[in-house]
Amino acid sequence: MGAFPFSAIVGQDEMKRALLIAAVEPRIGGVMVFGDRGTGKSTAARALANLLPPMDVVAGCRFNCDPKGAKCSHGGNGKIDRMAVPFVDLPLGATEDRVTGALDIERALVAGEKAFEPGLLAKANRGFLYIDEINLLEDHLVDLLLDAAASGENVVERESMSVRHDARFVLIGSGNPEEGELRPQLLDRFGLSVDVKTPQKLEDRIEIMRRCDAHERDPMSFRSKWQRKERKVLQQIAAGHALLGQIAVPDATLADAAQLCMAVGADGLRGELTLIRAARALAALEGETAVGRSHLRAVAPLALRHRLRRNVLDETGPATRIERAMAELWD
Amino acid sequence: MGAFPFSAIVGQDEMKRALLIAAVEPRIGGVMVFGDRGTGKSTAARALANLLPPMDVVAGCRFNCDPKGAKCSHGGNGKIDRMAVPFVDLPLGATEDRVTGALDIERALVAGEKAFEPGLLAKANRGFLYIDEINLLEDHLVDLLLDAAASGENVVERESMSVRHDARFVLIGSGNPEEGELRPQLLDRFGLSVDVKTPQKLEDRIEIMRRCDAHERDPMSFRSKWQRKERKVLQQIAAGHALLGQIAVPDATLADAAQLCMAVGADGLRGELTLIRAARALAALEGETAVGRSHLRAVAPLALRHRLRRNVLDETGPATRIERAMAELWD
Amino acid sequence: MGAFPFSAIVGQDEMKRALLIAAVEPRIGGVMVFGDRGTGKSTAARALANLLPPMDVVAGCRFNCDPKGAKCSHGGNGKIDRMAVPFVDLPLGATEDRVTGALDIERALVAGEKAFEPGLLAKANRGFLYIDEINLLEDHLVDLLLDAAASGENVVERESMSVRHDARFVLIGSGNPEEGELRPQLLDRFGLSVDVKTPQKLEDRIEIMRRCDAHERDPMSFRSKWQRKERKVLQQIAAGHALLGQIAVPDATLADAAQLCMAVGADGLRGELTLIRAARALAALEGETAVGRSHLRAVAPLALRHRLRRNVLDETGPATRIERAMAELWD
Amino acid sequence: MGAFPFSAIVGQDEMKRALLIAAVEPRIGGVMVFGDRGTGKSTAARALANLLPPMDVVAGCRFNCDPKGAKCSHGGNGKIDRMAVPFVDLPLGATEDRVTGALDIERALVAGEKAFEPGLLAKANRGFLYIDEINLLEDHLVDLLLDAAASGENVVERESMSVRHDARFVLIGSGNPEEGELRPQLLDRFGLSVDVKTPQKLEDRIEIMRRCDAHERDPMSFRSKWQRKERKVLQQIAAGHALLGQIAVPDATLADAAQLCMAVGADGLRGELTLIRAARALAALEGETAVGRSHLRAVAPLALRHRLRRNVLDETGPATRIERAMAELWD
Amino acid sequence: MGAFPFSAIVGQDEMKRALLIAAVEPRIGGVMVFGDRGTGKSTAARALANLLPPMDVVAGCRFNCDPKGAKCSHGGNGKIDRMAVPFVDLPLGATEDRVTGALDIERALVAGEKAFEPGLLAKANRGFLYIDEINLLEDHLVDLLLDAAASGENVVERESMSVRHDARFVLIGSGNPEEGELRPQLLDRFGLSVDVKTPQKLEDRIEIMRRCDAHERDPMSFRSKWQRKERKVLQQIAAGHALLGQIAVPDATLADAAQLCMAVGADGLRGELTLIRAARALAALEGETAVGRSHLRAVAPLALRHRLRRNVLDETGPATRIERAMAELWD
Amino acid sequence: MGAFPFSAIVGQDEMKRALLIAAVEPRIGGVMVFGDRGTGKSTAARALANLLPPMDVVAGCRFNCDPKGAKCSHGGNGKIDRMAVPFVDLPLGATEDRVTGALDIERALVAGEKAFEPGLLAKANRGFLYIDEINLLEDHLVDLLLDAAASGENVVERESMSVRHDARFVLIGSGNPEEGELRPQLLDRFGLSVDVKTPQKLEDRIEIMRRCDAHERDPMSFRSKWQRKERKVLQQIAAGHALLGQIAVPDATLADAAQLCMAVGADGLRGELTLIRAARALAALEGETAVGRSHLRAVAPLALRHRLRRNVLDETGPATRIERAMAELWD
Repeated sequence: MGAFPFSAIVGQDEMKRALLIAAVEPRIGGVMVFGDRGTGKSTAARALANLLPPMDVVAGCRFNCDPKGAKCSHGGNGKIDRMAVPFVDLPLGATEDRVTGALDIERALVAGEKAFEPGLLAKANRGFLYIDEINLLEDHLVDLLLDAAASGENVVERESMSVRHDARFVLIGSGNPEEGELRPQLLDRFGLSVDVKTPQKLEDRIEIMRRCDAHERDPMSFRSKWQRKERKVLQQIAAGHALLGQIAVPDATLADAAQLCMAVGADGLRGELTLIRAARALAALEGETAVGRSHLRAVAPLALRHRLRRNVLDETGPATRIERAMAELWD
Repeated sequence: MGAFPFSAIVGQDEMKRALLIAAVEPRIGGVMVFGDRGTGKSTAARALANLLPPMDVVAGCRFNCDPKGAKCSHGGNGKIDRMAVPFVDLPLGATEDRVTGALDIERALVAGEKAFEPGLLAKANRGFLYIDEINLLEDHLVDLLLDAAASGENVVERESMSVRHDARFVLIGSGNPEEGELRPQLLDRFGLSVDVKTPQKLEDRIEIMRRCDAHERDPMSFRSKWQRKERKVLQQIAAGHALLGQIAVPDATLADAAQLCMAVGADGLRGELTLIRAARALAALEGETAVGRSHLRAVAPLALRHRLRRNVLDETGPATRIERAMAELWD
Repeated sequence: MGAFPFSAIVGQDEMKRALLIAAVEPRIGGVMVFGDRGTGKSTAARALANLLPPMDVVAGCRFNCDPKGAKCSHGGNGKIDRMAVPFVDLPLGATEDRVTGALDIERALVAGEKAFEPGLLAKANRGFLYIDEINLLEDHLVDLLLDAAASGENVVERESMSVRHDARFVLIGSGNPEEGELRPQLLDRFGLSVDVKTPQKLEDRIEIMRRCDAHERDPMSFRSKWQRKERKVLQQIAAGHALLGQIAVPDATLADAAQLCMAVGADGLRGELTLIRAARALAALEGETAVGRSHLRAVAPLALRHRLRRNVLDETGPATRIERAMAELWD
Repeated sequence: MGAFPFSAIVGQDEMKRALLIAAVEPRIGGVMVFGDRGTGKSTAARALANLLPPMDVVAGCRFNCDPKGAKCSHGGNGKIDRMAVPFVDLPLGATEDRVTGALDIERALVAGEKAFEPGLLAKANRGFLYIDEINLLEDHLVDLLLDAAASGENVVERESMSVRHDARFVLIGSGNPEEGELRPQLLDRFGLSVDVKTPQKLEDRIEIMRRCDAHERDPMSFRSKWQRKERKVLQQIAAGHALLGQIAVPDATLADAAQLCMAVGADGLRGELTLIRAARALAALEGETAVGRSHLRAVAPLALRHRLRRNVLDETGPATRIERAMAELWD
Repeated sequence: MGAFPFSAIVGQDEMKRALLIAAVEPRIGGVMVFGDRGTGKSTAARALANLLPPMDVVAGCRFNCDPKGAKCSHGGNGKIDRMAVPFVDLPLGATEDRVTGALDIERALVAGEKAFEPGLLAKANRGFLYIDEINLLEDHLVDLLLDAAASGENVVERESMSVRHDARFVLIGSGNPEEGELRPQLLDRFGLSVDVKTPQKLEDRIEIMRRCDAHERDPMSFRSKWQRKERKVLQQIAAGHALLGQIAVPDATLADAAQLCMAVGADGLRGELTLIRAARALAALEGETAVGRSHLRAVAPLALRHRLRRNVLDETGPATRIERAMAELWD
Repeated sequence: MGAFPFSAIVGQDEMKRALLIAAVEPRIGGVMVFGDRGTGKSTAARALANLLPPMDVVAGCRFNCDPKGAKCSHGGNGKIDRMAVPFVDLPLGATEDRVTGALDIERALVAGEKAFEPGLLAKANRGFLYIDEINLLEDHLVDLLLDAAASGENVVERESMSVRHDARFVLIGSGNPEEGELRPQLLDRFGLSVDVKTPQKLEDRIEIMRRCDAHERDPMSFRSKWQRKERKVLQQIAAGHALLGQIAVPDATLADAAQLCMAVGADGLRGELTLIRAARALAALEGETAVGRSHLRAVAPLALRHRLRRNVLDETGPATRIERAMAELWD
């Protein structure tokens, strides 16, 4: 059903917030989505990609090079094309070669020249990479994807090839924790995480069915009905982008972040570093000039949920533990 | 024994209903058939395929292109051929290459040209794809089949090939839950599910033997005896097709669907979305103009049975739980 | 020791009956032989093959084409050869390629032409395929063998080859249930099953040793001594063949079959369908014109033994349960 | 240390008896040797091979063809060579190709001709094949070795080759039952079995050391010292060979054999068939004209030990159970 | 975020001490870093590499040959280039070929010449090799890496190649002991080990966030602010290098080392040998002329922690056991 | 650190004795070294190899052929080279091809000629082959290594190659029994075994550190300091070699050996045969003319330790059980 409007999604506020933060601050390092099947996880991500305006690319370049960036060396012809923001869905069972690209064996054999065949990371450049059931992927692949997402580059050094190309994308992984978890080492490398549940209000569910039915019958007119709202979201992202570099982070906010992380018992320092980064992006989206407690509060579950040690004596979920800690510290 | 008439099948009403719905509304997303061995699961599916009239295809095209569709680019010669509606039986142990098609290595080596060798998805285009014991298939293959069934397309991007062709087919999987189950994630992606049991009435069993014996001895005259009934089924499907776009879905029906799904505790939203879609197709088959409670009632077990959380305290089967919930809500 | 005469086999009546039925009605779908090691399972099957008269084949054809059949397209030279009825012993560890045949890689590389190298199914055409310890075979191979046995055809569609050739053979599998069983799904696809035990009568065992010793010392004169009895068996098979199409199946017999299957609790409908088919073949072998209760009685253990649900409370073996049910229903 | 004289082996009478029987009657089907490590299992077998006089072979033939046999078609030049009776030691980890022989890939690629590269079965033709720790071999290899040992032929049908050559050899397998057993199915296919233990008499052990030391210091003079005894063994084998076809097997002996097998509970009929064959060979070695109870008695442990069902209530070893049964029946 | 200044790292004194010792005395044999995720393990190592001044290399040489060393035979053109000290991050899933280098298959096939394609060990020559989650690597790879780290050479002898090139690098492995341990045999081959924990002081954590934030916003000015401190560290390393050969090791210090190792129960002798080596390097870093108890004390946990037998009765961690033993012996 | 002098090794008398015996009598069949990590197992073996004088080899021969031996057929040019006695360290993960040598595929493809690429067994010819952690090697490789060590030959028969070359070497395996044991079958094939422990005397440990430190600082002057002692060891080996053939083995010594083996319960006869062989070599090293009880006593733990059945009731180690048995028998 593809292009469902982002703003027509009923509920799922946390998911939408995480996606907007990742759109404004891609260094946040990927979003992990936990949740039941059939809760529209990929729909929301796809909707955000679809919402963004088509982008300029060097025509003929298979790495989606930006005509405004450094000179493209991938055989692009210098002219400019437009393409939709890419949304790449990593297939289950994808190999490392398919992900990173590989030597084009055929051309090597036939034409005797060493050519690099771009992979899914090239295809996702400047867009989104969605991985359903990421917990079923092999560890070294997840590692590689997180490396690329964090560095914005894909580096391939094998078979006497040495290729390095831009791979700036928002990484979105989804998985159902009941079906096996990612190792904590890998989970920790995701910037944000989101918990998606089936909506429990009758009106919400009816409204969802109504919108899906309308979209299914006549997608064109459905989308035009939501066009104004979509444009508003787009403006918010653009404004956030422009503002991000100027947001101040007061010392009190740093202390708040550190205290919260110590209180909830997050391993390592990625917790507070991500917390600050996400809060800054949220402040930018909200058009403010400094990060405050309200921003920490809004993003703490996103930034910390997947970084808590399991506490054998305390059966409450991570989100509740974070909320409780914030209440104890700040209220 | 092949071409047993669809209408000569004794009993198995739920199975036949699901197949007719899938024939009218292919977006329903596949039918999963649970059941004992030897209950005629594949016979019914094969019979439906055989019932449909031969279809026009572009002569020489190995993707079963429709001469009335977009121009065929698969080397078809533009003339028109007729072929039986394809019924593809996925062999146990089929590889991804056999399913999606692959580079024709031989032609690449010998003739030096890159040719795509179509796979089973191409062969099943505009027909049926039957997978016996789908629970024995690897997850990523099931995933791929469900993707194709849902999108109506087969996309192959590997070995520097990028092929995309129509793969519109009714996916039918069968499996015996006692021999290992599909993961809930995959099960949920099937539109409908059916439970097939060995008939328990003596007359039914005698009648089945009588018909099989007759068919075995003289298939030609047996089929001609059932020809009139077969034509009637065919007309019902054609009429349903024509009507489908015009069926109304009243708000009360949406509320009924949501309430039922919440009552039985179906995870996610695919339950109610499929329920509505199936009920609409049934209404079309019955020649009505709006979806009502009776349609929901008739398809609820098909749409919801495989989406129920297992309830440790409640040992009753899913079908009974659905019937009970409907009775409590609506009677 | 090879060619031991079929009629010189001491005892093993059930095994011999199943083999004769399969020889008369190949659509019965294969015979599964359960039993201890060293009970002459393969000897009996081999003896039956050896008993049959040499058959005419198209000279030079590696698919054993019948000169009286459709024109051979396998490079046969049109002349006629005679060959013994083939008896193929499937080796443990045989691959799918060896079974179905495969592309002749060598010829493809050297001569640049795509040639099909026939496999064991081609070699077994119009004869017997014996699989010792079938329970050690991979499921997808068993599946493939049963498909071929049921359809009388071998269809190979791979590596851009599409080959289809006759593969009419009597499939005989053997296995010791103590060493691991076939999945019920696969077992059910065998038409008949037989239980072979070590003979427990002293005279029988002495007689067996005496005949084996005589055969070992002078095979020629031993065989000539049994020639007359062998010819009689041969005539019985030929007469049965001729009669088979004319045997009537009265409604009372159908009711008997259905009642028996329900009484013993056979899953699915293959039980009664096979029961009728086997009883009809037995009636033909006995030169009668209609199937009656006596025929059902004689073949019921063969047709149903491997289709019974295990009953946890009832420790009696399947054969006893079938006999008991027949006694209760019919005596 | 190689060529230790057969007659200089201290004790190990059962092992030597089994080897002599196999030398006289190769159809016996292989000898399985159970026993601790370091008990000279391979020494005895190797000694027997070494004892036999060099044999005539077609010069240049890699299949050890007998110049007195059918015309050699393996490129032999028709002249006659002499070679020691081959003793092949199957290496752990040998592949099927190495055992049966395979297509000579190199020659196929370079010279473009299809040549068969003979394997270990060819090399062992007319000699001995010794397999240490046979329980570590894969089942399908053991199966294949037993097939060849029983039929005296190696049949290779693969990769569009069809090769069939003589492979007459005495198969000797050894294994320590504490390190994992052969499946009963495979064990049953061995003709004889032997139990070898470390000698427990001091004098024996000193004598063994003395002989080994003498052999190690000066192998030549040690062997010449035992030459006369070796020649005697050789004559016994030759005489047995000549006599074998004329030994009578009285009915009483058959009855004895059957009763013994029933009493000890040997599965299947291979027990009594082998018992008779081994007793006949022993009678021939002893220069008698008919098989009697004394011969049965001497070979019963060899022929039956590995064919007994394990009896949970009776902890006595198989040899004791056989001795006890013979005492009850015959004393 | 790359080049964070080494001296700007807050806390982590033990880690920094181990890195400085390895920089001064590379024969120490690698550093194993245990610790939680997100504690900046790789940041510190990367920072040290980045701190070191660029090094001279033979231009065009892919093995980082030193122009002052023996004549480069890797096709370098004799001119001199400058490159940053290499820091190689071993990817999860790297193969032995990628690590050691391998035959350049492509060049072998196309140009027909045998060329060695250098691997990661060549790339790391004269720099650092960092292995995250080394416990997930296969044993033979870890073994190979430790061999190279200990010998300073990479020896490849395969496929009829015999290549030997310098591979002097500081090996740094990291792993979380909760996710599976290295075998003691491999652990023992690491010279030093370090335990890294999340800082527990609020001020430290705030300071870390402040510095990371400053570095993230404007890396250039952040680095210039720390330039003076970085230069001081650099001078300390250079002075230590020069002094190392002249440090005396008094007998009393040897006795102290041996007594400590016996007291804590370190297996083998690598404990005391490494202890002396590390203490000598520390003395050099501190500008002293002889090794004393204070140096042993400072490096004992580094040198011994990973060499202690687990003591079932004593649950205290290895570091505590070492401290306690030193207190008992020396205080 | 390489060439540490053999005579400078502190303690480890049993290890040194076993190595000297193996140097004098290579037919002893390899030495298995059990022991903790870091106890200098490989240092001692390497030191012995290094102690031996350089040997003459046929120049250009890659099999280390002796110019005084049979004519070299490996392309040596007939001139004489000198090389250090080889010490080959088998890498973890070595394949069978790397060990035995294999067809040089490249040369076969390019030059079209069949060339044998020698393996590690060729490289170790006339020297030492050291296998660390032999328990991690696959069984068939250990088997192959023990075969070569016992026979002094490497026989490769594969891929239509038949290569046989000298492979006389002292096999030394090491392993830590806590990390998994060799199968008894394989252990029994080692001639001698040694148990190496971390020294427990303070003076020893200080002395070791002092010597290692001295060697590390200035290897040249350290070695020259020990030169005289090294020469003495060399003379002892040479004298032992010359004497070995003339040592008498009195019957009383044979009886002692057999009684000891029976008393300790060693399986099989390899125990007493090795005991005699090792005692004879020791007598030769000590310059005596007959083997006596004192020699048995000194080598009994070496020859028997790894051949004892585990005794569930007796927890004392094998060495103690052997000492106790000798005390009971002889004191």
